[in-house]
Amino acid sequence: MNEQVVLGIDIGGTNTVYGLITKKGEVIHHESIPTRGSLPILDLLKRLDFKVNEVLSSFSEIGELVGIGIGAPNGNHFTGMIQDPPNLSWGNVDVIRLFSERFNCKVDLTNDANAAALGEKHFGIAKDMEDFVVITLGTGLGSGIFCGGRLLYGHDGFAGEMGHICIEVDGRLCNCGNKGCLEAYASAGGIRKTIKNLLLENPESAFLKSLNGEKVDGLLLDAEFDDGNEIAKEIYNYTGTKLGQGLAQVATLLSPEAFIFYGGFSNAGHRLLEPAKKSMDRHLINNHADQIKLLASGLPQGQAGILGAASLIWSS
Amino acid sequence: MNEQVVLGIDIGGTNTVYGLITKKGEVIHHESIPTRGSLPILDLLKRLDFKVNEVLSSFSEIGELVGIGIGAPNGNHFTGMIQDPPNLSWGNVDVIRLFSERFNCKVDLTNDANAAALGEKHFGIAKDMEDFVVITLGTGLGSGIFCGGRLLYGHDGFAGEMGHICIEVDGRLCNCGNKGCLEAYASAGGIRKTIKNLLLENPESAFLKSLNGEKVDGLLLDAEFDDGNEIAKEIYNYTGTKLGQGLAQVATLLSPEAFIFYGGFSNAGHRLLEPAKKSMDRHLINNHADQIKLLASGLPQGQAGILGAASLIWSS
Repeated sequence: MNEQVVLGIDIGGTNTVYGLITKKGEVIHHESIPTRGSLPILDLLKRLDFKVNEVLSSFSEIGELVGIGIGAPNGNHFTGMIQDPPNLSWGNVDVIRLFSERFNCKVDLTNDANAAALGEKHFGIAKDMEDFVVITLGTGLGSGIFCGGRLLYGHDGFAGEMGHICIEVDGRLCNCGNKGCLEAYASAGGIRKTIKNLLLENPESAFLKSLNGEKVDGLLLDAEFDDGNEIAKEIYNYTGTKLGQGLAQVATLLSPEAFIFYGGFSNAGHRLLEPAKKSMDRHLINNHADQIKLLASGLPQGQAGILGAASLIWSS
Repeated sequence: MNEQVVLGIDIGGTNTVYGLITKKGEVIHHESIPTRGSLPILDLLKRLDFKVNEVLSSFSEIGELVGIGIGAPNGNHFTGMIQDPPNLSWGNVDVIRLFSERFNCKVDLTNDANAAALGEKHFGIAKDMEDFVVITLGTGLGSGIFCGGRLLYGHDGFAGEMGHICIEVDGRLCNCGNKGCLEAYASAGGIRKTIKNLLLENPESAFLKSLNGEKVDGLLLDAEFDDGNEIAKEIYNYTGTKLGQGLAQVATLLSPEAFIFYGGFSNAGHRLLEPAKKSMDRHLINNHADQIKLLASGLPQGQAGILGAASLIWSS
């Protein structure tokens, strides 16, 4: 059928997902490859080029590649640069120039959370919403914000850093260098800090010790929560309460129709979102309370980013 | 010359300002009349009707009245209603219906802080800005937000309640019923609370006693600050520091080009804005610090509201 496709790329700290996506949002082929952020970005570019050409020649139904949309940490829509991304050694790179020279087609860029928000708007649960916030819960907390039907960029392309609004004056030290940021509480990294604090109070807890690794075992935490483990309940209750404080700040300012949660740590679902909703409503001014929905993403895990990145091209 | 005009109305808790405004933003006539919020809104409507007709017939250069723009506390652009405004006994009133029936022309409504933001965008200091926040500092703290060149309304018309973002968990009780709202610190009402707190520590201070009235004497406070009075410096330093915390929250989320200050209490100028800027920059993530301007309004005191209200019609 020779259908036109866009290459959607979601660059992450560990893995990069790419996919070939039709105008209707069908993902014809998608795959995850290691980002290898310690090497120059040219290494990733070369591997992507090879992979994509392989796919383009092996799928007879694919026609022209009309463009490339990229979502990346610290990707700036205005400058076309990835600017000093965390966990990647690239410094400042002109991604749009690099990719358009290599692939010889139109290239557009935004940050990873914005790409997830575009994915929900064009192909997911936010199709009929004009005002909403997508929150990506992973190691950190990212956000992509739609206001009046358009993505919010601010005057320099750096708007939407919800993970770094302060929810507690002189609170926990955040990776950004400030204190009390929402991300230092409500993210996988934040939960690790919570577990470390709880271990100080309960140094003998076998459960806490088993959670206290490099990476929090979300499946174990969820299972223990479901079994009624009081410590697991405390972890989600505390994390949700802090998350709700941040949601209330944002809702007071933006009055979105919904917050939509995406990313590995959002699999906690109601365990996290129930205390978050309660806390949010308690901190809202009267006419907002109980008006704002907390929803799980409507897209397959790992695909909001590439779908949203592709929509940069399809909706332009 | 029979120029077309729009009637801009800025309804306040105590006074209502109205003005006849040309497409270029010339204010042909403007006047302040008491709002009399304890009486039904029909009382205000009748008096405005009488006044406006008097003006229309006495100014030979005025031609057709093409519409009426209204800014009012709790004015909702989406519903056309003023909804339970503070300090006014009106409950919920369908202002657009009332005014369009009486004046037989197009009527549009927004809230008072949004009107001030529209005024700065169309006729003031924000003409060339796409992303900025106007903060009205009076008894309370209101905000009107522009994102990507458009006023931010949120899904229900209630976005922009910056006065009620929480800057201190379990902090001062706010008039809205919540604790720690920015408005409870950074507004004339907030300064009154600060003065009361300082009086507990310094019960003998004649200066603090003289400030501790129904209304804070801003001119006295400014004069003492300029004379090097340590308590006056402490008041502005504390208030500015708290204001800066709120600005940082909003800037982290919205990345505006500038915050623009308007309203009686903004006359404090550098006395307030210097500590606010310092505090804001300290709380911002690195790439934002020192990027965002704090500016005084570019419009005559009392006119941003009517100019902005009029631009609802002129820019529609």
